[in-house]
Amino acid sequence: MSYRVGIINVTGFAGMEAARLLWKHPAARITSITGRSLAGQRLGDAFPHLAVYGDMKIDAEIAGDVDIVMSALPTAASAEACAPFVDAGIPVIDIAADFRLTDPAEFEAWMGKPHPAPELLPRAVYGLPELKRDAIQAAKLVANPGCYPATSILALAPAVAAGLVDGPIVVDAKSGISGAGRGSGGGFGYSEVNEDVSAYKIANHNHQPEIAQELGALRDGVRPPVTFVPHLVPMTRGIHATCYAPLARPVSTAEVREIYRDFYNDAPFTEVVATPPHTKHTLGNNMCLVHPVVDERNGMLVAVGVLDNLVKGAAGQAIENMNLMLGLPQAAGLDLPAVYP
Amino acid sequence: MSYRVGIINVTGFAGMEAARLLWKHPAARITSITGRSLAGQRLGDAFPHLAVYGDMKIDAEIAGDVDIVMSALPTAASAEACAPFVDAGIPVIDIAADFRLTDPAEFEAWMGKPHPAPELLPRAVYGLPELKRDAIQAAKLVANPGCYPATSILALAPAVAAGLVDGPIVVDAKSGISGAGRGSGGGFGYSEVNEDVSAYKIANHNHQPEIAQELGALRDGVRPPVTFVPHLVPMTRGIHATCYAPLARPVSTAEVREIYRDFYNDAPFTEVVATPPHTKHTLGNNMCLVHPVVDERNGMLVAVGVLDNLVKGAAGQAIENMNLMLGLPQAAGLDLPAVYP
Amino acid sequence: MSYRVGIINVTGFAGMEAARLLWKHPAARITSITGRSLAGQRLGDAFPHLAVYGDMKIDAEIAGDVDIVMSALPTAASAEACAPFVDAGIPVIDIAADFRLTDPAEFEAWMGKPHPAPELLPRAVYGLPELKRDAIQAAKLVANPGCYPATSILALAPAVAAGLVDGPIVVDAKSGISGAGRGSGGGFGYSEVNEDVSAYKIANHNHQPEIAQELGALRDGVRPPVTFVPHLVPMTRGIHATCYAPLARPVSTAEVREIYRDFYNDAPFTEVVATPPHTKHTLGNNMCLVHPVVDERNGMLVAVGVLDNLVKGAAGQAIENMNLMLGLPQAAGLDLPAVYP
Amino acid sequence: MSYRVGIINVTGFAGMEAARLLWKHPAARITSITGRSLAGQRLGDAFPHLAVYGDMKIDAEIAGDVDIVMSALPTAASAEACAPFVDAGIPVIDIAADFRLTDPAEFEAWMGKPHPAPELLPRAVYGLPELKRDAIQAAKLVANPGCYPATSILALAPAVAAGLVDGPIVVDAKSGISGAGRGSGGGFGYSEVNEDVSAYKIANHNHQPEIAQELGALRDGVRPPVTFVPHLVPMTRGIHATCYAPLARPVSTAEVREIYRDFYNDAPFTEVVATPPHTKHTLGNNMCLVHPVVDERNGMLVAVGVLDNLVKGAAGQAIENMNLMLGLPQAAGLDLPAVYP
Repeated sequence: MSYRVGIINVTGFAGMEAARLLWKHPAARITSITGRSLAGQRLGDAFPHLAVYGDMKIDAEIAGDVDIVMSALPTAASAEACAPFVDAGIPVIDIAADFRLTDPAEFEAWMGKPHPAPELLPRAVYGLPELKRDAIQAAKLVANPGCYPATSILALAPAVAAGLVDGPIVVDAKSGISGAGRGSGGGFGYSEVNEDVSAYKIANHNHQPEIAQELGALRDGVRPPVTFVPHLVPMTRGIHATCYAPLARPVSTAEVREIYRDFYNDAPFTEVVATPPHTKHTLGNNMCLVHPVVDERNGMLVAVGVLDNLVKGAAGQAIENMNLMLGLPQAAGLDLPAVYP
Repeated sequence: MSYRVGIINVTGFAGMEAARLLWKHPAARITSITGRSLAGQRLGDAFPHLAVYGDMKIDAEIAGDVDIVMSALPTAASAEACAPFVDAGIPVIDIAADFRLTDPAEFEAWMGKPHPAPELLPRAVYGLPELKRDAIQAAKLVANPGCYPATSILALAPAVAAGLVDGPIVVDAKSGISGAGRGSGGGFGYSEVNEDVSAYKIANHNHQPEIAQELGALRDGVRPPVTFVPHLVPMTRGIHATCYAPLARPVSTAEVREIYRDFYNDAPFTEVVATPPHTKHTLGNNMCLVHPVVDERNGMLVAVGVLDNLVKGAAGQAIENMNLMLGLPQAAGLDLPAVYP
Repeated sequence: MSYRVGIINVTGFAGMEAARLLWKHPAARITSITGRSLAGQRLGDAFPHLAVYGDMKIDAEIAGDVDIVMSALPTAASAEACAPFVDAGIPVIDIAADFRLTDPAEFEAWMGKPHPAPELLPRAVYGLPELKRDAIQAAKLVANPGCYPATSILALAPAVAAGLVDGPIVVDAKSGISGAGRGSGGGFGYSEVNEDVSAYKIANHNHQPEIAQELGALRDGVRPPVTFVPHLVPMTRGIHATCYAPLARPVSTAEVREIYRDFYNDAPFTEVVATPPHTKHTLGNNMCLVHPVVDERNGMLVAVGVLDNLVKGAAGQAIENMNLMLGLPQAAGLDLPAVYP
Repeated sequence: MSYRVGIINVTGFAGMEAARLLWKHPAARITSITGRSLAGQRLGDAFPHLAVYGDMKIDAEIAGDVDIVMSALPTAASAEACAPFVDAGIPVIDIAADFRLTDPAEFEAWMGKPHPAPELLPRAVYGLPELKRDAIQAAKLVANPGCYPATSILALAPAVAAGLVDGPIVVDAKSGISGAGRGSGGGFGYSEVNEDVSAYKIANHNHQPEIAQELGALRDGVRPPVTFVPHLVPMTRGIHATCYAPLARPVSTAEVREIYRDFYNDAPFTEVVATPPHTKHTLGNNMCLVHPVVDERNGMLVAVGVLDNLVKGAAGQAIENMNLMLGLPQAAGLDLPAVYP
């Protein structure tokens, strides 16, 4: 038995990464892929690293029957493409941001356009299994988390859930350039971003409400204040989120680490580590490494999270959600070492 | 007229950068350089990028008369080498950390060894001209700031001095690898740090007290709580400090920017910019670019500072201090474009 | 049925890459790993990217029964470690250079020390399946090719074998820094090799005789003149060999490409491509991409080969050899997409 | 006395590098700069690394009187912009390829369009002072060499001129990405070219005839066969050319080095070095480092040349030519250390 997977927009970085990871999946296989600009080409000709797919062609639209669909279209375009499958009862995972915020007004405020399918929002589940495994298993429409929120929420969730945090949260995130997508314009040219670090959309990035919404959901829905600042660093893959949260009460690093370990006890892909993790330790696999430290001098929790933005931050997370939605083992096809060095 | 400069330990990254920058100085020239491991070699043979120096040799000790000395030795070794010059009345700039903390007990607590020359501490001035120009001009011993503190203090000083900050400060700093020094061990090998971001010495780096001491000096000596977390990013040069400080009262980004512009009105090397600065915009020159933004949603100041860790964070700053100590124009030899791309 | 594999010196880049790739092998599993400096540690603690191995510990010596051994020790140390297994009839793959040159005098001339086990040389087979599949299948001792020779020989072999080449061959090879090994000294520090290209051991690298020997074996043992120049480029993984060979007779690019396609018709991991290949298209997988072009203006063949130095240039090649030696499908565990971007 | 310099298209990498280098020129200053897409903006706003220029604005056309003009427009567009100045008797340096090939038919064959100003070709001098200093001093129109040809010709010229070379020459060149220009399209995005090496335009790049023409001019105009293959490597600046030339007679490395040293005895910016040079040793300055080695085993000369493609390969070379054309010291404004690390 092998489930048939359709990938909408396989030609972006998230879509092609899903194809890379699904190649060795024990219980699912890609049967249709789309990508309008390259429709008609063989996948392996367009993207030589996927030459293992042999004669598989890129289509304009999903062709034939599929058991599940992943959409890697850009935000706002994605909902429209997902809707027919949702309507037809086919499970859908949206890797874009269309179904992450529960309130369509908030979507409009941050994205600058009305939500394209507000009627579907009540059916969408936020796809972070560390927080919502049961709901994902029962869902037909899963909103795959953003790469920054996945990292930040996993770094902070145990502390927030345990009531350890009281005060304004700072999330300082560093991302590799692949987060900007394939064929991005001149601003992401090699010469422009090599040997460079810069912040962007300071306290004004649309991943902020996603982080606040999900952290709030851990505490009776009251959203904590979150100042979120993303940065670009000169590497291709990886996100490193350093999260700062004032502690509600004195607590030691050892105690916090224990709380974190308990929280992630059943999570196959989030590991609490004892030394500062490197993004490179997760390159190409679905792990999120979390490292909480208490700055006792200042009563401040510092919680680091790292992951590969294209895997646990996008395509790997989508496959993990697919596994849950299809009743497969959560880690099927994803229990891989990272690529190091 | 041309002042004679001696550089102790020209063979480290800071020392060789001083030699690079002094080459075109209009009123000072290097007359003696040391570096024990390479003593006897021509500077340009040891470091081909400095071949313009022709036959100048590396000595074991400072040779001949000099008008000013810069020491780029490692912390704790530096004070010992500086002392004879201080005693002889020759102006000294220490690029190491030996004379930055005013309290020798604090030095011992953070460095793990007794201060090597506590009797000189009262004569040392912290060499950040944006804060202490007059004192530097009168000093015979200047403690050149650390690269992280220089960036962080310049990003935060106007807000702290204006009483805008009330609450725990977070400094999240990202550094290029040259901060680890020349010939650093395996942990800084290309394969290990390329395509990687990691934090280190979380809330436990010895630059923390330096930041707190100098920010405190702006407000009656009361040190603010500062949580400082340094990170390594895969580039050679550059520091990007993102500083987060709760605001004492509502204020707009425009107002804050005005306060910053007033504060740095006379500073030739610190510029307040209107868009997020890139470390690359300062590569190779002595500029610090500062960019304050108010996160009005959360009453949080986000202040970014960027500079080249080897220039405004080390050798360029030392030359700026030298200019002040010798009565030269502050910008002599330092008014340079950055190297871009 | 699952073969038991022992890896000697898992702590180098080649050894740890073998562990990464063997994790998902369908018919072989690691049962013992050594690495003296880290003996006693858990593999996943020493190398977090291999945390999937759970409690597996690094031993000082191969422990328990194994069906095959791979040695990733340094050259000259490796033969000594391999000998007891060869003597015991256990199949051995040596990833070092100890058994590649058939003539022990040549080993001594290039390595500067006598061959440590000359009596084993007659039993060793050069492990490049594109040239010697049958011999590898029958061998008990396989000399895994060097990363530069693997790339260069695969780029040139079809032309040499077809008698197309007449005249001095130039191999200009560009390597990522991981070729220098883990924890390499100061010369491979990030700050030293980032933003840099340099040649080294010009026409004097010990991979030269390996290339000449194997190309000569394709033509009655007469070694062609080969000028080999390796270069370091600032990336972690990848080798790009650009090979130049004067043509013995006029021939078109199309004809040459056809000769290449025929030659590699049965080779699962060497593909002849129609556009200049990128090293990045093979990152993390076992492919070698080959691209021959005729410079008709000058009667010169330009043949490009690219591969991942740690996979097809080391650990992946070793597993491919293991598969052949154990009678498994040649591609078992190795039919993977590359990691891109 | 200070000459007034106009730069046409200051907004490309070569143009802005000219602005960077001219800032400290002792006898010339920029008085007008153009760049149509950014006309009206302050130079320092458009390019923050040039903020030292204060209020200088980018114009649409050269404004006011100038004593010399540099054009950094794209090839084919440049000639048209240069022509009026040439006609007016104002010295012109064309950094594009418009005036490098002496034969307009060859221009058309390689560029795919007719030469835009063939009547000016007889007046143009190829601007490589190591070969043509006297002619440049007398010229009113100088064709600045291409970055690849500059490196390759300087690496090979002494050997060719001395009659040491007999047989087909191979030039294998590795370039940083800035050679592709500012704001280059998706193919030069960070994620696409990081961790990657690839060849392009194999034996088909329009710099080939430029190399052959100038090497031929050293030997009675007979062009040697040259196979030229350029490669992209993941760094911003730098070119490394490795040149291979069969020797006409046995000669030692020491003899060849002596011939090279004699040849470049009077050249302030080309130095013959005794160890393999690093591109990084020339980053930001006008040096070309040359390193010839004889592969005695095969009677092959290997000659390495390195330089910064934006300096000695473009803007620095243009200023060196400007100095000669204006009767200034050849090295004025250019005797700078490189930026290292």
